[in-house]
Amino acid sequence: MPTRRHFLSTLPSVGLATRALPTTLAAQEPPTAPWLAPFLADVQRLIGATIGTTAGWDRLAELCDTFGGRLTGSRNLELAVAWAADAMQKDGLEQVRLQPTMGPRWVRGEESLEIVEPVPSPLVMLGLGGSIATPPEGITAPVLVVRSFDELQSRAADVRGRIVLFDVPYTTYGQTVPYRTNGASAAARHGAVAALVRAVGPMGLRTPHTGSMSYAAGIRPIPAAAIPIEDAQRLARLAARGVPVTLRLRMAARTEPDVETANVVGEITGREHPEQVVLVGGHFDSWDPAGGASDDGVGCIVTWEAARVIRSLGLRPRRTIRVVLFTNEENGLRGATAYRDAHEAEAGNHVLALESDIGVFEPLRLGFSGNERARQVMSDVVDLLRPIGMPALGPGGGGADIGPIVQAGQVPAMALHGDSTRYFQIHHTPADTPERVDPREVAKASAAIAVVAWVAAEMEAPLPR
Amino acid sequence: MPTRRHFLSTLPSVGLATRALPTTLAAQEPPTAPWLAPFLADVQRLIGATIGTTAGWDRLAELCDTFGGRLTGSRNLELAVAWAADAMQKDGLEQVRLQPTMGPRWVRGEESLEIVEPVPSPLVMLGLGGSIATPPEGITAPVLVVRSFDELQSRAADVRGRIVLFDVPYTTYGQTVPYRTNGASAAARHGAVAALVRAVGPMGLRTPHTGSMSYAAGIRPIPAAAIPIEDAQRLARLAARGVPVTLRLRMAARTEPDVETANVVGEITGREHPEQVVLVGGHFDSWDPAGGASDDGVGCIVTWEAARVIRSLGLRPRRTIRVVLFTNEENGLRGATAYRDAHEAEAGNHVLALESDIGVFEPLRLGFSGNERARQVMSDVVDLLRPIGMPALGPGGGGADIGPIVQAGQVPAMALHGDSTRYFQIHHTPADTPERVDPREVAKASAAIAVVAWVAAEMEAPLPR
Repeated sequence: MPTRRHFLSTLPSVGLATRALPTTLAAQEPPTAPWLAPFLADVQRLIGATIGTTAGWDRLAELCDTFGGRLTGSRNLELAVAWAADAMQKDGLEQVRLQPTMGPRWVRGEESLEIVEPVPSPLVMLGLGGSIATPPEGITAPVLVVRSFDELQSRAADVRGRIVLFDVPYTTYGQTVPYRTNGASAAARHGAVAALVRAVGPMGLRTPHTGSMSYAAGIRPIPAAAIPIEDAQRLARLAARGVPVTLRLRMAARTEPDVETANVVGEITGREHPEQVVLVGGHFDSWDPAGGASDDGVGCIVTWEAARVIRSLGLRPRRTIRVVLFTNEENGLRGATAYRDAHEAEAGNHVLALESDIGVFEPLRLGFSGNERARQVMSDVVDLLRPIGMPALGPGGGGADIGPIVQAGQVPAMALHGDSTRYFQIHHTPADTPERVDPREVAKASAAIAVVAWVAAEMEAPLPR
Repeated sequence: MPTRRHFLSTLPSVGLATRALPTTLAAQEPPTAPWLAPFLADVQRLIGATIGTTAGWDRLAELCDTFGGRLTGSRNLELAVAWAADAMQKDGLEQVRLQPTMGPRWVRGEESLEIVEPVPSPLVMLGLGGSIATPPEGITAPVLVVRSFDELQSRAADVRGRIVLFDVPYTTYGQTVPYRTNGASAAARHGAVAALVRAVGPMGLRTPHTGSMSYAAGIRPIPAAAIPIEDAQRLARLAARGVPVTLRLRMAARTEPDVETANVVGEITGREHPEQVVLVGGHFDSWDPAGGASDDGVGCIVTWEAARVIRSLGLRPRRTIRVVLFTNEENGLRGATAYRDAHEAEAGNHVLALESDIGVFEPLRLGFSGNERARQVMSDVVDLLRPIGMPALGPGGGGADIGPIVQAGQVPAMALHGDSTRYFQIHHTPADTPERVDPREVAKASAAIAVVAWVAAEMEAPLPR
């Protein structure tokens, strides 16, 4: 079990992204819904056992430091899965098990990108997950810079034989990521020989963002990579000056046959209704150049911590609390599907599902999707978290990994939200390390999820459906 | 000649480091020293021709975009030198020439660092300039983490056969850089097989900082590289947990025979005292993974811009204004020495020397070192810059490149200073790109140097010595 220490003596350096947290944990107590009175003592204990410790951050750092990037199909993920299952056992969680599934195995291999003409100069790059390789000698071709799919269309006659760079300014992840996902096929349709995409995220420090891409059926696949904003702007400025630029892209990426991977599952078995489940979790896989601290090691850690703290206080709820560390969120969602497939018959017994997969960055808030009566209940519960600075329950429950079971069982769904700018700054980059995560935010998120899971599992009647 | 445009229509994205500038250019006019009255009209013209344009930033971007990193001995630097001489000619500068010198040629080659045990995981690294190579198969050895030279000494018995990591928190560049410069020999003295140094700079985004190192005479040389703060902290945390970590370092670095390189020199020849020189400049070489925008492309650009703007207004001063883009500051100072050697006999005819080599980051200020009477004169001149937001003249003139001629001629020396935190954030890193530089700060620095150089070259009597 991780040691617990007081913040002030142990805060690590947390880098650029750290902010001060409000320290007034006891201020602004909201009026408590009368039905929650029997829960208050345990809620206080859960918060007290979590806030002020670095147990969650320590475990996150141990995970990231020891195993590094945890791409599906890698030995790193396999070893981390075994470590997590062992640690869950030691925490006293029950029914600890691996839930196997087959998953893809994409291997990055050596890769590089350089300006060949006018003057040789290396660029920073990261191949996109799922990309094919270049020939061993690379692909050497003039670059064509476009700012949108529309511009690609309007310059279709210039695309053949070129490496197309989508120099698309980042607005939101949802708006910008289609260039990463679909850019290669869009360019290949007009005869491009490779595709580059400007990193999907805000300006960093020459920071490349990888991520998944896919090939449209019937279109010849071409290699695809991401480059930092600075490199994209450099190529765009050269193009604007009328300087012809030739690039050489080398990628040795390959997709091997599927291999076995697994979700890690642990529980606190319910004392009265063990078949009724409060599901909490995140995804355990990450991209390979990233430590996967925020995406999504910390989502695993804060949901796991919630269960660990409940268990460590000797609390046993009426219903089962189940933690799932899902595999293969990044490039396949096979873990999410495997969970749904294994539990489809019991989908209706899932009383609540909560996912954390956007980091743990202040200002934290909880979101809910589901029926209005359940929302009102959970809103009352979340009001219990005002003393630790959580705002009222907002919209937006759910997530990629709990999606299939939520859909199968019409399960009320929650999500932990936070500052997405800080998340997307480091998302899928080598800078996704524990330094970006504040131990106080981990503790706060863990406490919040512990309280939500505990009340949902302990309240007399299950959440209204 | 670069085009000039108005800020508001053309500001590029300038990244994390940008700050708003005060826009009140005409506020707080200080009382002007009476002796400066004859200069005021030209000073106004110089400021007017600079502030509000992006000419300097555009030229900086053209330099960095076209040539990339400009390490001494590289073809990139050679081509950039030719480009600069050509552009100076086109600007109408006079006596444009290359001032040749021999310089070192250190070639990085392929390099990598990885954790081998407990779980294989790549780390981010940059070899240090001047380092030797590892054998082709790399050096595989357990790591020993120390926080200081003192700790190295106290653990001397544990060093043999290890890769020593100096995990030294960054305080100031001056305090921390000795670990980069001397760490390898300090570790080798006790039998280390390689040395790693935590990046010398504040926390970035997994950002490695290279820089020069040297080997102490009589100590067996060992390979040396820098790793980002995050990687150093990861290894330190693993060590603190008692986890034995084995690393593999591969470096193909080599030092080849010296090659010819050159300072670029251009002038506005003085109309009355052409032999008396106001020297302004920066260094034109950079580290290889960096575009060298702030270190020190922009120092070259703002001093060059000062001369270009004076020339473009048809102004010809009493004395000569000479711009020197020095070569080989980073790993040899051969350009500085070559300038001194070429002009030693005329050292006493240098009336003022000004260097810019700490970026152009607000709050900008000018510093002076020299005799008190000259300081008072330049203090009056710098007060003319209050309308563009420059504070009063401060201490601290000089710099590495003007150092030898200043010493030879007891030359009054100035320097452009700015926010060193923003500079050392990106210093010697791949993130030293034009995105970090604000066009408004370039314009302001150029205007300030133009005014200083103009008045120093035009005032009736030379600066008191």
